[in-house]
Amino acid sequence: MRKFAMYGKFKAHPGKGEALAEILLEAAEQCKSVEGCDLYIINVSEDDPDTIWVTELWNDLEAHDASLRNEDAIAMIQRAKPLIAGVEPIKLKPLGGKGF
Amino acid sequence: MRKFAMYGKFKAHPGKGEALAEILLEAAEQCKSVEGCDLYIINVSEDDPDTIWVTELWNDLEAHDASLRNEDAIAMIQRAKPLIAGVEPIKLKPLGGKGF
Repeated sequence: MRKFAMYGKFKAHPGKGEALAEILLEAAEQCKSVEGCDLYIINVSEDDPDTIWVTELWNDLEAHDASLRNEDAIAMIQRAKPLIAGVEPIKLKPLGGKGF
Repeated sequence: MRKFAMYGKFKAHPGKGEALAEILLEAAEQCKSVEGCDLYIINVSEDDPDTIWVTELWNDLEAHDASLRNEDAIAMIQRAKPLIAGVEPIKLKPLGGKGF
C-alpha cells in the first residue's frame, strides 16, 4: 500500500470560481467522514479567483478511486460540472514530511 | 491572520530528482519543530522522477517567510541549488477542508 496525492486544478468559467469553491468545500466536508482520506483542502489561486486547487492526500490510490464512485460525490460532480471550464490533475507519489 | 499555502515545484537536473527529494525531506524534518508550519510534504511527480513538488501550509505568510530566513534553511538551500534546474511556486489562499 502506497499513499497517493494529487493537486486537482479546476479552472472555473469566468466569475464562477467562488461558486465552484463552495461546492468543493461541501465535498471536503463529506471527506471528513471518509476513511483513507488524509487531506482534502480547497484553495484559490493567489493570481486568479477562477482557478481552484484541491490538495488531496489518500492512504492509497484505491481509497481515492472509491471516493469517486460514491453516490454523493457523483451528485456533487454533476452540480459542479456547469461551472468548470477545465480540469488538470497533477498526480504525485508522496514521500514524507510534516503532515504526511 | 490568514493561512497561506503553496505548491513548490522543483525541476531537478536530469537524474537528480532523488537527491533533491532527500534534501527536501531533511527540510521537512526541520519543519516538524517549526510553529506555524502545518504541512510540508515532499512528493515526486508520477510522470517525471526529476519533478519534485512540496505541499506547504502555513499559519500565515509571515511564518512562511520567517522560515526562509532560518540559518539551517539557508544552508539547505545552498546544498540543494546545484541540483535544481528551475523552481515554480504556485501560491494559494487556502479556504478550508479536511486537514486545514
